[in-house]
Amino acid sequence: MFSVTVRDHMMVAHSLRGEVFGPAQQLHGATFVVDATFRSATLDADGVVVDIGRATEELRAVLGELTYRNLDDHPALQGVNTTTEVLAKVVADALATRSREGRLGAAAQQLAGITVTLHESHVAWASYEREL
Amino acid sequence: MFSVTVRDHMMVAHSLRGEVFGPAQQLHGATFVVDATFRSATLDADGVVVDIGRATEELRAVLGELTYRNLDDHPALQGVNTTTEVLAKVVADALATRSREGRLGAAAQQLAGITVTLHESHVAWASYEREL
Amino acid sequence: MFSVTVRDHMMVAHSLRGEVFGPAQQLHGATFVVDATFRSATLDADGVVVDIGRATEELRAVLGELTYRNLDDHPALQGVNTTTEVLAKVVADALATRSREGRLGAAAQQLAGITVTLHESHVAWASYEREL
Amino acid sequence: MFSVTVRDHMMVAHSLRGEVFGPAQQLHGATFVVDATFRSATLDADGVVVDIGRATEELRAVLGELTYRNLDDHPALQGVNTTTEVLAKVVADALATRSREGRLGAAAQQLAGITVTLHESHVAWASYEREL
Amino acid sequence: MFSVTVRDHMMVAHSLRGEVFGPAQQLHGATFVVDATFRSATLDADGVVVDIGRATEELRAVLGELTYRNLDDHPALQGVNTTTEVLAKVVADALATRSREGRLGAAAQQLAGITVTLHESHVAWASYEREL
Amino acid sequence: MFSVTVRDHMMVAHSLRGEVFGPAQQLHGATFVVDATFRSATLDADGVVVDIGRATEELRAVLGELTYRNLDDHPALQGVNTTTEVLAKVVADALATRSREGRLGAAAQQLAGITVTLHESHVAWASYEREL
Repeated sequence: MFSVTVRDHMMVAHSLRGEVFGPAQQLHGATFVVDATFRSATLDADGVVVDIGRATEELRAVLGELTYRNLDDHPALQGVNTTTEVLAKVVADALATRSREGRLGAAAQQLAGITVTLHESHVAWASYEREL
Repeated sequence: MFSVTVRDHMMVAHSLRGEVFGPAQQLHGATFVVDATFRSATLDADGVVVDIGRATEELRAVLGELTYRNLDDHPALQGVNTTTEVLAKVVADALATRSREGRLGAAAQQLAGITVTLHESHVAWASYEREL
Repeated sequence: MFSVTVRDHMMVAHSLRGEVFGPAQQLHGATFVVDATFRSATLDADGVVVDIGRATEELRAVLGELTYRNLDDHPALQGVNTTTEVLAKVVADALATRSREGRLGAAAQQLAGITVTLHESHVAWASYEREL
Repeated sequence: MFSVTVRDHMMVAHSLRGEVFGPAQQLHGATFVVDATFRSATLDADGVVVDIGRATEELRAVLGELTYRNLDDHPALQGVNTTTEVLAKVVADALATRSREGRLGAAAQQLAGITVTLHESHVAWASYEREL
Repeated sequence: MFSVTVRDHMMVAHSLRGEVFGPAQQLHGATFVVDATFRSATLDADGVVVDIGRATEELRAVLGELTYRNLDDHPALQGVNTTTEVLAKVVADALATRSREGRLGAAAQQLAGITVTLHESHVAWASYEREL
Repeated sequence: MFSVTVRDHMMVAHSLRGEVFGPAQQLHGATFVVDATFRSATLDADGVVVDIGRATEELRAVLGELTYRNLDDHPALQGVNTTTEVLAKVVADALATRSREGRLGAAAQQLAGITVTLHESHVAWASYEREL
């Protein structure tokens, strides 16, 4: 199995609902350093899982919908508790949609799955792994 | 599949038994930077795999039993060759026990598995992955 | 010259005033991974610049006043444009005050200066360096 | 499942064939920071997956065949498009051969698989995972 | 003293002249992860040393002249031994020129100096520090 | 001012004397990831501060005297409280001696100073900076 990973980041405000979150129930924020991994059993004729340039552009586009925002007010996230795990799934699902739409190029037709990891600090991160 | 990882560290002395270890058969030491990953197929009602605060506390408690010690004299490790692999399993098993005891909270009841990685330097690390 | 550095982090919401900031004028957020460096020409009788345990506690206390907050509403930051540079100075000045109050211990009496670096992402950070 | 990972690097020139690569079709270069992971369901009598010293030496030997070279002129890579994915497989397969030849020691007889990750920058990397 | 640092990278082929370089006399390559630090004793009216967005763009522009190239054939580097130290100076001097031309914005008029660090691997890097 | 840095590590046992150290008064251990920085106002005829290969070898030789040992029993460290700060000075002074002996090559004759940083974990490190 092959994989390619590209990294970018987003900077958001949000608050979390639930007593378990303690002070994180208040409006605060995070830089999420985001790693998007694309997996494939085979390489295309060019020898790649997916073009790194295109993968970088698509990840940037997905994060561009979220960054520099207060996620509590984001129309697409109404009623969503934007934990790191949930946001990892939001990003992975958006990349999956873009892949199916062909925006990742022909190579991406062979993708087996996508994993997205959001680093919320140097001591905590969360991932969501899905098939395609 | 979702996962959450928290990082902490421990600083221990120990020696390793076996010719393969060369100079590491002498009493020496290590900082182990420890990553504990909790995996789950689903999120709980709060949208988490496990509360990051609680996971951090439990990892700290497990490492607190080992850090600032000479592992050669540790009662719980008599007869154990404390390689990085073995210590990764010791930490993972202790976290699994605590999870079953409910110390990681209700969310942890749905955990599928735990992986623990011990970084012994910037150029070497070992992991142990287990189911729950 | 000797120095000791300890690392911690804070997670805040804020907005920035000024056209130069573009989309960062909107309410957003950041994880700041914070490195606090204490400098001294000499070591104390124990052989340290400052006790790492105490330095870690004081940095945590300073960041505890800021983390999990919307800095736009923070009483101590009214009228302050909370750029990464400005926040680095806020943290460094707070550590300097605590050092003068003796909270960093006797060793800290010999401190020559403090530098605080705030990493706002994997690709951008800012520092403030001051004497004591 | 246990694993051990060792890290080293190589510094190579190369060019890539295919329009998808844009400016990377020109002769350029890369530092690949290489992580080689060895996986095993069990530990040997010494408590290791593989001796870290030996794993480090074998990885160095494999990278020694590639580093400080123009891969476009490398006899073993004629007709190969040396993408990061392809090079990850080249390194993993070479380590697998060495493992089968016994160069990784007796412990390595129990290896289940090898994963090799090549970091081409702080924002992009590729992996190849194989069984043994 | 305040400072702001932004990170980017370039991927180049080159060879080094001089017996001291051993195998690096052959055509090979490197990814240079580049940190550009801008220093200033004071902040501007917006509270910044330099706009991070603009600093990022200018660093990208400077590296854009070098990346995906064989530096041995680069018109601007004829007769230059492109060691990591020398390239750090090339990048720092180019940023200094752009700063004087006003491309870093008005804030940059107060800059005291620039430091550029080129990481050639996880175990080696070089810097050049200059005044403005 | 130019500088070159190389990184290596050592793994040692030790105990610290003084109540301030709390549990670190017990025999424990550390991996110190060591960065040795060589500074020079000018480059030599080859365009370097110091040959990175030679700097790496000399750092390895210095650390080779300390690693895989219990520093409490080290003949050269009797009566020394081996804090991270003190060990940074031990390594820097040893590199300075080797530089004066010519082991770093002719280029090193122009060295202005050396800084050594010892990372004891992902959240704490200490440095010693000296002139030559």
